[in-house]
Amino acid sequence: MNNFTYYNPTKIIFGENTIGQIAKEIPANARILITYGGGSIKQNGVYDQVRAALKNHKVFEFGGIEANPQYTTLMKAVEICRDENIDFLLAVGGGSVLDGTKFIAAAAPFKGEPWDILAKYAKVETAIPLASVLTLPATGSEANAFAVISRKEIGKKLAFGAPPLTFPKFSVLDPTVTKTLSKRQRGNGVVDAFVHVTEQYLTYPQHAAIQDRYAEAILKTLIEEGPEYVENPDNSESAKNVVWSATMALNGIISAGVATDWATHSIGHELTVLHNIDHARTLAIVWPGMMRVMGEEKKQKLLQYAERVWDIREGSETEKIGLAISRTEEFFNSLGVPTSLKDYELGKETISNVILNLKANNYVELGEKKLVTPEKVLEILEGRL
Amino acid sequence: MNNFTYYNPTKIIFGENTIGQIAKEIPANARILITYGGGSIKQNGVYDQVRAALKNHKVFEFGGIEANPQYTTLMKAVEICRDENIDFLLAVGGGSVLDGTKFIAAAAPFKGEPWDILAKYAKVETAIPLASVLTLPATGSEANAFAVISRKEIGKKLAFGAPPLTFPKFSVLDPTVTKTLSKRQRGNGVVDAFVHVTEQYLTYPQHAAIQDRYAEAILKTLIEEGPEYVENPDNSESAKNVVWSATMALNGIISAGVATDWATHSIGHELTVLHNIDHARTLAIVWPGMMRVMGEEKKQKLLQYAERVWDIREGSETEKIGLAISRTEEFFNSLGVPTSLKDYELGKETISNVILNLKANNYVELGEKKLVTPEKVLEILEGRL
Repeated sequence: MNNFTYYNPTKIIFGENTIGQIAKEIPANARILITYGGGSIKQNGVYDQVRAALKNHKVFEFGGIEANPQYTTLMKAVEICRDENIDFLLAVGGGSVLDGTKFIAAAAPFKGEPWDILAKYAKVETAIPLASVLTLPATGSEANAFAVISRKEIGKKLAFGAPPLTFPKFSVLDPTVTKTLSKRQRGNGVVDAFVHVTEQYLTYPQHAAIQDRYAEAILKTLIEEGPEYVENPDNSESAKNVVWSATMALNGIISAGVATDWATHSIGHELTVLHNIDHARTLAIVWPGMMRVMGEEKKQKLLQYAERVWDIREGSETEKIGLAISRTEEFFNSLGVPTSLKDYELGKETISNVILNLKANNYVELGEKKLVTPEKVLEILEGRL
Repeated sequence: MNNFTYYNPTKIIFGENTIGQIAKEIPANARILITYGGGSIKQNGVYDQVRAALKNHKVFEFGGIEANPQYTTLMKAVEICRDENIDFLLAVGGGSVLDGTKFIAAAAPFKGEPWDILAKYAKVETAIPLASVLTLPATGSEANAFAVISRKEIGKKLAFGAPPLTFPKFSVLDPTVTKTLSKRQRGNGVVDAFVHVTEQYLTYPQHAAIQDRYAEAILKTLIEEGPEYVENPDNSESAKNVVWSATMALNGIISAGVATDWATHSIGHELTVLHNIDHARTLAIVWPGMMRVMGEEKKQKLLQYAERVWDIREGSETEKIGLAISRTEEFFNSLGVPTSLKDYELGKETISNVILNLKANNYVELGEKKLVTPEKVLEILEGRL
């Protein structure tokens, strides 16, 4: 285990009918900008609950943050923050709204070109305090300081984080909100959380017993609760366990002191940029290929995964690993999430474009040991045709 | 799973040779009181590292905080805080020093009788910021807001917590420090962390899958790494995993949204008050009795414990549970920690005194379902003679 610093100051307010608690968490004299997405919060009652809770606060609104939040959209919110002296941001939505709001928080007070925060790792010295009411369990953005922002005009999808400034001050996780999600959104959420965990866990043995077993705990819980959560939105106990799993998947605990992977995400991001495929669905496509092609490098952890997560006890090492990968792929499919490029009618030309984009972003040595070269990406994606 | 709020703002600085990092975590103009125990930090090099790191800070010192930190001792430090306008407390030691320092932090600015914080749950409105350099993994006090304070003159051992005020701002966990602990201290630490977990886990099914599996993760890690850590202080990887396990055991994650027990602790505290037995050792005495006597109420979780933690797959339910309890007792013994009253030459009269003390503190309905009555305590301790 390596040395590490772990600091996560987000207050989690978890449970049914907890949205009303936001009123006492936000300063009474705050000038709040509520940010949201396509307006589903106005159908499912969340918007009304938020407005009712903040009836004595000064509130502005900014809607229309899209999936894979766009720089151009977010800069309009930055304008509002500057014009209206906004001093508190409340993201009401899923990971895209949260990520977008983190960028708004950092960009509004930024002296200089905000794009540099993403493109040039420009240092963020200050940020508007932000918080969230989460409506979609998936990305874990509600309990970390990181965000991924897109700029489709130039084909970029880039990440940034400015801890501790961009940690949400609080995040309200009301699992009842998930009832109104589509089956597709629920399935995507389970896969997203699942792959977040494997990016931190399926590397090589690092003698980090707690981190390993916590990762396995989240994976097993998603396998156990995910299908029921997807099929039966009224099962509130499954919803609670999935919501909490998604948060724990990316709050920093399972990556403390260990080298992590994230190659599947980097490749997936390019599939989203090129073909607008849902983020989680790109991960489901890439994941089985990544595990098969990088199986030798990840051998010991894949064996541990097969044995501890899937309880596979028989067969040779190669058979165990193969079975664990195919059972994972079946698990994604069972949630309604396809796992091959041909499910999106994509062929070989896509692979070349993904590799070109990765090279353009200097992503030519991906993974925990920097062994995922463009040649490996080719092999990974050819297996996904 | 119940609704919950989870907030833990302690920054963890973990790893070898990290003590020097305290300098940049404490305001340059702070008036710091370093608190410590019996002086072992002056033998093992920790004191020198702390003083070197703070060479440009204004530093005062208060040593002599004993195991089961005493109110009378701590009030002397409160005097120093008031006289010297101390505005930062740095606990350098184990759980007793940390707990004592939390009380000093709350008591120094308290308007009124500080004993009321413990005896009457008087509300703590403000506290001196505190942080820690941990020298003994065991209590988990380094990452929570709680403390247990004793006043031997009147036979009391009482708990308080004032989150978020009494969370350490940061805690440095340098596992190399454990090398100089005695075998007894290391064994006690493993048992203490282990029982912290079971107090939160061995209750009844609450459909909290992550909390359950995280608890099992910590228990399995302590079983796996504990013996090596106790026997071989130079195994730095075992030390790291034990240190991190002890912190995770009581940082609030495994108790989020679930009912907890703590009856073993309440009974154990009285054994410490009466006979000055090390805290962890009192837990080791009480635990097997608690599990046997309350086995019916805890049946489903004990079965889960037998199967998932000890991998016991065969036998009747009663046999599995019995085996899990006896293997746990053997595990404590293997760490050099005795598990019966007769190991301390104590007999029946002790049991009556424990029950009298519990009644005096109004602890007459202990446990997750308030079913541990004085009659049950009698039965539990009679089984430990």
